[in-house]
Amino acid sequence: MTFPVVGMVGGGQLARMTHEAGIPLGIKFKLLSDTPQDSAAQVVGDVVIGDYRDLDTLRAFARGCDVITFDHEHVPTEHLRALEADGIPVRPGPAALVHAQDKGVMRAKLDAIGVPCPRHRIVSDPADVERFAAEGDGFPVVLKTVRGGYDGKGVWVVRSSKEAAEPFRAGVPVLAEEKVDFTRELAANIVRSPHGQAVAYPVVESIQVDGVCDTVIAPAPGLDEELAGQAQELALRIAQELDVIGHLAVELFETADGRILVNELAMRPHNSGHWTQDGAITSQFANHVRAVLDLPLGDPRPRARWTVMANVLGGDYPDMYYAYLHCMARDPQLKIHMYGKDVKPGRKVGHVNTYGDDLADVRERAAHAAGYLRGTITE
Amino acid sequence: MTFPVVGMVGGGQLARMTHEAGIPLGIKFKLLSDTPQDSAAQVVGDVVIGDYRDLDTLRAFARGCDVITFDHEHVPTEHLRALEADGIPVRPGPAALVHAQDKGVMRAKLDAIGVPCPRHRIVSDPADVERFAAEGDGFPVVLKTVRGGYDGKGVWVVRSSKEAAEPFRAGVPVLAEEKVDFTRELAANIVRSPHGQAVAYPVVESIQVDGVCDTVIAPAPGLDEELAGQAQELALRIAQELDVIGHLAVELFETADGRILVNELAMRPHNSGHWTQDGAITSQFANHVRAVLDLPLGDPRPRARWTVMANVLGGDYPDMYYAYLHCMARDPQLKIHMYGKDVKPGRKVGHVNTYGDDLADVRERAAHAAGYLRGTITE
Repeated sequence: MTFPVVGMVGGGQLARMTHEAGIPLGIKFKLLSDTPQDSAAQVVGDVVIGDYRDLDTLRAFARGCDVITFDHEHVPTEHLRALEADGIPVRPGPAALVHAQDKGVMRAKLDAIGVPCPRHRIVSDPADVERFAAEGDGFPVVLKTVRGGYDGKGVWVVRSSKEAAEPFRAGVPVLAEEKVDFTRELAANIVRSPHGQAVAYPVVESIQVDGVCDTVIAPAPGLDEELAGQAQELALRIAQELDVIGHLAVELFETADGRILVNELAMRPHNSGHWTQDGAITSQFANHVRAVLDLPLGDPRPRARWTVMANVLGGDYPDMYYAYLHCMARDPQLKIHMYGKDVKPGRKVGHVNTYGDDLADVRERAAHAAGYLRGTITE
Repeated sequence: MTFPVVGMVGGGQLARMTHEAGIPLGIKFKLLSDTPQDSAAQVVGDVVIGDYRDLDTLRAFARGCDVITFDHEHVPTEHLRALEADGIPVRPGPAALVHAQDKGVMRAKLDAIGVPCPRHRIVSDPADVERFAAEGDGFPVVLKTVRGGYDGKGVWVVRSSKEAAEPFRAGVPVLAEEKVDFTRELAANIVRSPHGQAVAYPVVESIQVDGVCDTVIAPAPGLDEELAGQAQELALRIAQELDVIGHLAVELFETADGRILVNELAMRPHNSGHWTQDGAITSQFANHVRAVLDLPLGDPRPRARWTVMANVLGGDYPDMYYAYLHCMARDPQLKIHMYGKDVKPGRKVGHVNTYGDDLADVRERAAHAAGYLRGTITE
């Protein structure tokens, strides 16, 4: 048999769920994980424990793989170039991935290809933030370190230059952006393969709480069809222009005046696509595997009128397993996806998916299960 | 976290797919496999290589598990009793499993509880087969060794006592059965948990070719609703009477005069339930895991009007991966499930699922993909 070996760098839940989606394809899945306790390392057979920041480790890992892909965007760009120079297919490649690693590079590229973004520029110090504010509608201003942020970390909303000192302390370039007066957040998820095929999932609404994704509704309720099409085309064009291979999530702001602006890019399976595991014909994880192997992509269309994903965050109770009894008995259609992670308050430890014809009911079921597992709902 | 450890004895494809279904539940999955190359051993993290026929091996394996379940029915009944005596939950337990291990015990029990079966009795030699034939409608007669058979092995259809010598050579008791003049084969799949909850999947039609399952259609087309209900009730009653925990497949003959007779029992996820992976709200594998953990069971209802499963058998071409290109491009909705097994002619190495509203189309797509992967269809 000539079934290929997919090398996954990073042992988080995205790797765990990609492995799960790869099992039916009969491919070999090899994992580079920081520790044996990592989410994916618990369930994968072929695991190498090592540090992805060490080039020798990466090279040794890659030698047994037909293609390398990623659970996260933190592998140094120069290491990825070294792997490519060694002849190992890296998907997405460093030339694409740098746009998901560095928000400054991303904004510059999106400007160059005419993609609508919030007003932005690199700022040098708090006084420069003051000037950036004055160039537009004033404060508040959003400051982001160009590298290293996720889930609200590395992002500050400041109301004056006095509040703007902290972002500069890391010694990383700081990007200033206007605080967009958006009505809601959307995400356009697409998957693209090396031979140029691409598929677009329905555009979803993403509801954030405290800077962390809380709920995703697929498709985005009441979204203008033309705007949905624009969002999908935008994501497909970004993937093509940046030569993204695999899954691309484009996080978007929808504004009151009917525009969409790009917030962030993620070049890997993404939280806004978790609903596809139970709600789409082909999940983002299965299509990511197919894309990095340059196999024809699977159908991205939804299987239900509505699918809702709710993240399960850690709460005060460490034992989420006991809560299964109530959740499963209450809703036999509930789809639980846990990551094998220890519960810490606020930490993403799983998600649930629900689907059906009645959006209010589907939302209630997802919110109830996620809240009950967390411990914020007790009946 | 108190997530339990499910110990799976046997490394075949049923274990592989049960692991896949257990990943979202966040449970720990531990495998006892004959070799590291076995289907499940390729994809599971926590694997013990050992012989399930050795009690010490089983005992050492079971010590790390909260419950033991099975990929196959070949673990000696007395070993299972020893594990139970050690205090390890064994699900299904030996008192139930013996009915799937020994066809003589199974027939005696089904007679005792009034379940309709083909006419049958244990026969002692070819002359006794002659008498058995004369007691009914004569030859042909079906002979089965009471232990050790599967997929047509251990089963003979004989037309005279002269042909009846071979089954007796194994030194295992031989069961004679009338050759039922059935119109088709059905299967009733149910799942039952220790606290007595049970769910019934739609009754399916199972089409055999050369004694091996070729195609499963869910639900069985044109099946009389009352007969379907009878088949489900029969399976639920068998599970209750035999105290089956987990998945139970009841293979049935449907006769021209509108009766159903029990052919075989399997107490584990079963080929006739593979369609549930893509066609039911909760798959047989997910529900088997939930049952052995005594969790509330998931909804067994179908998600599509029709789902068809076609087995992929080994053919003349060892490289099935290359065939993915054509199959996936032709049918983006196709669900491929490969087992990581080397191709040998006639060996089950995977299956495909298709679903939709038009049965003829759904069947054609499944048959085409299975045939193309095998190499019997080349366009």
